[in-house]
Amino acid sequence: MDQLHISLGERSYPIIIGAGLLSEADVVSSHVEARDLLIVTNERVAPLYLDRLRLSLQGKRTAVVILPDGEAYKTLETVSKVFDALTAERMNRDAAIVALGGGVVGDIAGFAAACYQRGIDYIQVPTTLLAQVDSSVGGKTGVNHPAGKNLIGAFHQPRCVLADPETLQTLPEREYRSGLAEVVKYGLIRDPEFFSWLEGHPEKLLSRESAALSHAIRRSCELKAEIVGIDEREHGLRAILNLGHTFGHAIETATGYGAWLHGEAVSAGMVLAADLSMRLGWLSGVDHKRTVALLQRLELPVAAPKIGAARALGLMGMDKKVLAGKLRLVLMKSMGDAIVTSDFPLSALTETLEQGFS
Amino acid sequence: MDQLHISLGERSYPIIIGAGLLSEADVVSSHVEARDLLIVTNERVAPLYLDRLRLSLQGKRTAVVILPDGEAYKTLETVSKVFDALTAERMNRDAAIVALGGGVVGDIAGFAAACYQRGIDYIQVPTTLLAQVDSSVGGKTGVNHPAGKNLIGAFHQPRCVLADPETLQTLPEREYRSGLAEVVKYGLIRDPEFFSWLEGHPEKLLSRESAALSHAIRRSCELKAEIVGIDEREHGLRAILNLGHTFGHAIETATGYGAWLHGEAVSAGMVLAADLSMRLGWLSGVDHKRTVALLQRLELPVAAPKIGAARALGLMGMDKKVLAGKLRLVLMKSMGDAIVTSDFPLSALTETLEQGFS
Repeated sequence: MDQLHISLGERSYPIIIGAGLLSEADVVSSHVEARDLLIVTNERVAPLYLDRLRLSLQGKRTAVVILPDGEAYKTLETVSKVFDALTAERMNRDAAIVALGGGVVGDIAGFAAACYQRGIDYIQVPTTLLAQVDSSVGGKTGVNHPAGKNLIGAFHQPRCVLADPETLQTLPEREYRSGLAEVVKYGLIRDPEFFSWLEGHPEKLLSRESAALSHAIRRSCELKAEIVGIDEREHGLRAILNLGHTFGHAIETATGYGAWLHGEAVSAGMVLAADLSMRLGWLSGVDHKRTVALLQRLELPVAAPKIGAARALGLMGMDKKVLAGKLRLVLMKSMGDAIVTSDFPLSALTETLEQGFS
Repeated sequence: MDQLHISLGERSYPIIIGAGLLSEADVVSSHVEARDLLIVTNERVAPLYLDRLRLSLQGKRTAVVILPDGEAYKTLETVSKVFDALTAERMNRDAAIVALGGGVVGDIAGFAAACYQRGIDYIQVPTTLLAQVDSSVGGKTGVNHPAGKNLIGAFHQPRCVLADPETLQTLPEREYRSGLAEVVKYGLIRDPEFFSWLEGHPEKLLSRESAALSHAIRRSCELKAEIVGIDEREHGLRAILNLGHTFGHAIETATGYGAWLHGEAVSAGMVLAADLSMRLGWLSGVDHKRTVALLQRLELPVAAPKIGAARALGLMGMDKKVLAGKLRLVLMKSMGDAIVTSDFPLSALTETLEQGFS
C-alpha cells in the first residue's frame, strides 16, 4: 500500500494506492470520517464495485445514487439529481459524498459536494485509470455547458483519494488506453526520465501488468501532487497539466461529447502541441517523433479529426485558458518541460491547425 | 460617502455607501477592475437603475441579463440562464458579474460567479434594504431547493459592494419594512445601543428619512463586517446572523417561497427565538416585550402562521443549522448578545412552537 500526500495547508489530504484496497475495510473506514455518506456512482460501476465498497463502510449510514454512464451526462441536470438525493436522505453539513467511478462521476460528485449546503466533504474512489492518475487528485470539480467543457465548476479538494488499481482490470480497452494518454502527459510536461521509463514498458502497460501499472499510477500522482501543491487554483504552473487539452477540447466539442474519449482527444491534442512546439524551435524533431511514437505504441490516436482549422480555432477560443482575449497554450520548451504561454505567432498556430485539422 | 472594509486577507474588500453613488461614474468605475462585465438584474430593477449604472460604467464592455423578479426564481434553472448569457457573450476568466438588485439577484449572480469557470469576480450593487444591510455583504451565495432555502450555494466574496441608499426610495412599502427586520436583528444579536437607537427613531426609519436610513445601513454593515471578518465560513460566531432564520425558513417553506417576504418571516422568527430565550431564563421579560414592540412599531409581523408545531419542527430539521442530527438554534443570552446553541430542552422548544404555530 502506497501513501502520497497533497500539501495544501488545512486542505491537505492523502492519496492511498493499493491493489485490493477497496476490500480492506479497516483502511477504507479509517479514511472516511463522516458517519452519513451518499455514494455517487454510475450504472456501469455499481454492479462491479458498489457492494465491495459498502461492505468496507459497514457501520456508516450509506445511501446511494446511481447516475447514467458517460460524459454526455456531465451536466447541471445530473448534479441536480445528486442534490435531490442528498435532501431526500436528509444529509446535513457533516455528511460526505463518496465518488465511486471514473472522472465524470468524480467531477459531478465533487461539484455537488462543493455546492451542497455551501460545501460538504467528499472522498474520491476512482475506478478508471484517468481518474486514478489525474481527475480524482487536485480538487477540480465541475460539469460541461453546451458552449464548452468544464465551464461550470468549483475548486473543492477531497478529504482523501482511495485508488485501487485492481479495479482497472475490468476497464474496457479503449477507456484504459485513454487513461494512458494522461500518464504520458506527466512525462511530457515534467519528467523526462518517466517518459523514458514509459518508452521502455509499453507492453506491460498495455497488458495492465500489476507492478508496471502501480508504478505508473504512483509516479503520475506524485507529479500531480507536486504541481497542485505549488499552484492549487491554477494561477500559473498548474495549467501545464492541460497539455493537449485546449486542442483536445476543440475535438471533443466538435465531435459531440463522448464520441472521442477525453484521453483520446488529449492524445491527439498533445501531438498538435508538440507540433507547434517544434515549429517554434523549442522541441527537437527527435522528441516530437518520440512523442508520436509512444502514443502510437500505446494505441492512442495521434491524428485530429478533419473539422477544419477555422472551426478548431473558434472552439479553442471558448476555452478557459483564454486570458484577456489572447489565446494561451501549454507548449513544450523541451521534453519534460512544459510552459503556459501566449508568446507565439498566430501564423505558427495556424500552420499547426491546418496541418492537423484539414 | 462612507467606506467600510471587510478584512478577509486576500479576499478583503470595501463597502461603499453613498446617496447618489450609482450616478458617480468615477467612484463606480474606480471600484470595477474588469473590462468585460455581465450585469445581472431583474425585470423590476432594470427599468429603474440599469441605464444609470451602465452610464457610470462607460468604457467597459457591458452585457446584460434580466431575470424574472422574485424568490420563486431563485433556482438552479435561473443560474443556468446566467451561465448561458456568460458563454453567449464569450466572457472569460477575467470578466466579472455585476449584481444589480436585491438579495435574490445578488445570491444568484454571486453563485453564478462562484461557479463560472470555477470562479470569476463579482460586484454587488444592492438596491433593496435587505441586500444593502445583509445579503450583499459576506460572500454567501446560492439558490433554493424544493427541500429548503439556500441548500445549494458557495462562499464567494464580492470584490466590492456599492450601496446607494437613494435606490431605496422606490422600494415597495412591504419590501422596505422587510429589510428593517434585518436591521433590528443586528441590535438583537450584537449591539444593545443600536437597538435603543432604533427604538428612538421608528418614524424616521418608516419614512425613509435620509440621515437615519444612512446611519442604520452603515451600522448594520459595520456589525456584519465585524462578524464575517471573525468567522467567514460560519464555523461558529457567524451563525448568530441567522437569528430567527431557522424558524423563518420553516415559515417560508410551509407557505411557499414568496408568500411571506424573507424579512417578514425573520421578524416572526425572531419573536419565536426571543420567546424561547425567555423560557430558558436568558432574555428578560422586559427585553422580550421590547423586541416585539419595536418590530410591531416597524409594522412587521410578530405572529407565525398557524401551520402546526409538528410541521414547523419537521421543516426546521432540514435547515442547514442542524448539526449531526441535533437542532441548533440562535438564541439570546440577553439583549444584544446572541449565541448558537443546542443546549436547551426539546420541551421548551416545543412550547414555543405550540404557542407560535398552533
